[in-house]
Amino acid sequence: MNNSKMICIANKIKYLGNSGFVKLVDCMPRVIPNSSAKLMCDHAIVQAARVSLNDGIKTYEKDTKLIDFLVKHKHTSPFEMVKFKFHIKCPIFVQRQWIRHRTANVNEISGRYAVLNPEFYIPEKIYDQGKMNKQMSGNEIADKNTKELFDNYIRNSVKQYSMYKSLVEKGVSREIARIGLPLNMYTEFYWCIDLHNLLNFIKLRSAYNAQSEIKDYSDSMKELITDLCPETIKSFDKYN
Amino acid sequence: MNNSKMICIANKIKYLGNSGFVKLVDCMPRVIPNSSAKLMCDHAIVQAARVSLNDGIKTYEKDTKLIDFLVKHKHTSPFEMVKFKFHIKCPIFVQRQWIRHRTANVNEISGRYAVLNPEFYIPEKIYDQGKMNKQMSGNEIADKNTKELFDNYIRNSVKQYSMYKSLVEKGVSREIARIGLPLNMYTEFYWCIDLHNLLNFIKLRSAYNAQSEIKDYSDSMKELITDLCPETIKSFDKYN
Amino acid sequence: MNNSKMICIANKIKYLGNSGFVKLVDCMPRVIPNSSAKLMCDHAIVQAARVSLNDGIKTYEKDTKLIDFLVKHKHTSPFEMVKFKFHIKCPIFVQRQWIRHRTANVNEISGRYAVLNPEFYIPEKIYDQGKMNKQMSGNEIADKNTKELFDNYIRNSVKQYSMYKSLVEKGVSREIARIGLPLNMYTEFYWCIDLHNLLNFIKLRSAYNAQSEIKDYSDSMKELITDLCPETIKSFDKYN
Amino acid sequence: MNNSKMICIANKIKYLGNSGFVKLVDCMPRVIPNSSAKLMCDHAIVQAARVSLNDGIKTYEKDTKLIDFLVKHKHTSPFEMVKFKFHIKCPIFVQRQWIRHRTANVNEISGRYAVLNPEFYIPEKIYDQGKMNKQMSGNEIADKNTKELFDNYIRNSVKQYSMYKSLVEKGVSREIARIGLPLNMYTEFYWCIDLHNLLNFIKLRSAYNAQSEIKDYSDSMKELITDLCPETIKSFDKYN
Repeated sequence: MNNSKMICIANKIKYLGNSGFVKLVDCMPRVIPNSSAKLMCDHAIVQAARVSLNDGIKTYEKDTKLIDFLVKHKHTSPFEMVKFKFHIKCPIFVQRQWIRHRTANVNEISGRYAVLNPEFYIPEKIYDQGKMNKQMSGNEIADKNTKELFDNYIRNSVKQYSMYKSLVEKGVSREIARIGLPLNMYTEFYWCIDLHNLLNFIKLRSAYNAQSEIKDYSDSMKELITDLCPETIKSFDKYN
Repeated sequence: MNNSKMICIANKIKYLGNSGFVKLVDCMPRVIPNSSAKLMCDHAIVQAARVSLNDGIKTYEKDTKLIDFLVKHKHTSPFEMVKFKFHIKCPIFVQRQWIRHRTANVNEISGRYAVLNPEFYIPEKIYDQGKMNKQMSGNEIADKNTKELFDNYIRNSVKQYSMYKSLVEKGVSREIARIGLPLNMYTEFYWCIDLHNLLNFIKLRSAYNAQSEIKDYSDSMKELITDLCPETIKSFDKYN
Repeated sequence: MNNSKMICIANKIKYLGNSGFVKLVDCMPRVIPNSSAKLMCDHAIVQAARVSLNDGIKTYEKDTKLIDFLVKHKHTSPFEMVKFKFHIKCPIFVQRQWIRHRTANVNEISGRYAVLNPEFYIPEKIYDQGKMNKQMSGNEIADKNTKELFDNYIRNSVKQYSMYKSLVEKGVSREIARIGLPLNMYTEFYWCIDLHNLLNFIKLRSAYNAQSEIKDYSDSMKELITDLCPETIKSFDKYN
Repeated sequence: MNNSKMICIANKIKYLGNSGFVKLVDCMPRVIPNSSAKLMCDHAIVQAARVSLNDGIKTYEKDTKLIDFLVKHKHTSPFEMVKFKFHIKCPIFVQRQWIRHRTANVNEISGRYAVLNPEFYIPEKIYDQGKMNKQMSGNEIADKNTKELFDNYIRNSVKQYSMYKSLVEKGVSREIARIGLPLNMYTEFYWCIDLHNLLNFIKLRSAYNAQSEIKDYSDSMKELITDLCPETIKSFDKYN
């Protein structure tokens, strides 16, 4: 593995929504002897799993077979040995779902310390309540009046921000001024998670019945890590 | 311990803010032989700690001394054996701080499933940015213009809700309609935590530099549990 | 629910091996209004799940259907709201597998504080290495020589204990004296876990390929809790 | 940062006891722009902490001051962003204390899969029971009889192993054969932990009242990481 590859990993980013992104900042393993960057996370899994047998990395075929066996039989502990650190910018209502996944490390921007930026998530299309289940959206809404009302709703949420800004400028403390801000504003956080728990996140948040906004982030993370553990992702897709 | 005491424990509630509350729904231990309800959580701690010594409940003096020793020397595992389940209703901006404590179990009302109620947290007074540190509020604001601006800000957050309601009535899916709602709206959740992690929560959130809104909840929880583990709370106050 | 029922729950015990047992010491929920002891844990699950819908306990049929839905679709958080506290006495080699389940609270007897008791697990039968997979036992061994060697092995492990005892009596510190004790000695611990994580334990440790000694404990715990959450166990068995 | 430095980090090892070692296999961060390997973990902490302020790496002086502030005021979350992966070989009685630290990832050699190696921990000196507290060792034992008895005890634990080996050779399944093995045998595992939880481990296991065998491992890990986060360790020593 050479430095240029590593820097490339550290800069992988996907842009989402109006101001959002998910960026793969870092990952562990850092150095696995005799491996290429491409498979390095797969190799770390194999290495951890084979400690049970007093054994290490073998041929590509045997290692791939082992990973498939581990995924199939839910031997999850070797996948915990691989860590990913992401920098995420997403709407607050997405973060509220995200944070429910507890086996992860989080550092989020604080509205008590910092004045927040005027960045809003505005969906391009709106949908009616789905018939399939009680939580999902259904078909796109074409009705002009409804769309206009939604535009006003968004415009009024932006107005909330400008009043927030004025309050801060007039000396109101940030922690109080922020309480009326809308959930479609963007927030930012660092998020560190192991591969086992990330796959769990992806299973739930890339599912057909997840809200499309968080699904986009989940799909993007999956895309960002696939190069680093292609065999794991292949087996994950096979059994889920 | 008799039934009437137990029912009384299960109904302990403190009201906070405009529509908020924190209610102690349940706790474990349930039955400690030969103990009164008053000390039952203290007893469960002693019982767990004494398994190390193949020993159980002793005299009140010895048990009290053991609890003090455990708190002082941060032998935390016996305190994990005591569980509390709370029902909480608080503003979303408070829940966003709350949920950062990960070693707990959570079930929250879902804006995808349910239409949210028009309940808002409105502070009675507002404060300027504190000089003491970078996150806290300082002195009360008396300036009429600023107070008026704040009233408009709250009024406009309520207007956001009425537009949300109209959008839902016009058929927009709940998961989309909710995205512009303000952070001062109330949310509800069940929250289960062990005594060790609850004391950690209280240490951080009842601290002088916590935001007063979450501090009120933290103080209330401490009050609600004090009867059940008076010796633990006494030692906690002594060493913190 | 009346007191006599509660005391009965707190005394449920199963004896295992030579000196082992698993005892259900306590559980949460403690009091669910209008429920019988029999279903009380099922009810606590329903109650937590329905906070999402601003809803509570309904009819038996509807509640049962909801539990089945939650188990089937792996909505696990409501099951975390139910807690069980066990007192366990098992061989050290079983505890070494047990402790790998991390989402639980533990207080174990300490060989640094206490002199351990002369209690050993001695299997009634021994088995050869299984052909089915690389970790399991296979058929019972009838060969007299092998059985005799095993008897000597156990006898020599008991001899280790008597030398340990002499060392302690001669003043060697307990923490050093214990280092040569065998893994078939019994240890004791309190163990507190939520229902979701307990079901995970049972899934793995009551599986056909688990070691029979830990499987016996896992099966016993399942039996001890079945009365308290019969609908959950029914759905668990259906989908696993 | 260049490759040679990285490989050097990945090979850091300390040998302990008769066959034991602790090896720093890997760590995260992997690449922090504009940083030297020497401070790279400190930098990752600063980077995570400053996301709260929408801010990044600053001057060495400011970053050092921030780390000191974070350690002093127990703002622990930025330290969770740094991960270390160790390969550890230690006696089973040490591993039994080690595994009580639950916020870590573990892959251990399995006595069901693998035949264990004849490697034993044998203390050079033995001590009497301490007077200072109820768990610690005290002064070295000089008495010839006691020392001889201890030698026999160790010799008999080695004899247990040779009987184990014979049982396996006669076809007894590994999972049964191992049950009489002594606690002074070596085991191996991969262990991944974040810096916050590692410092907690070090605080407890490098304390004066920890058993000296685990203290040696704890001290060694501290030594292995100091180069990677010198400012954090400096502040840790200052406030503990």
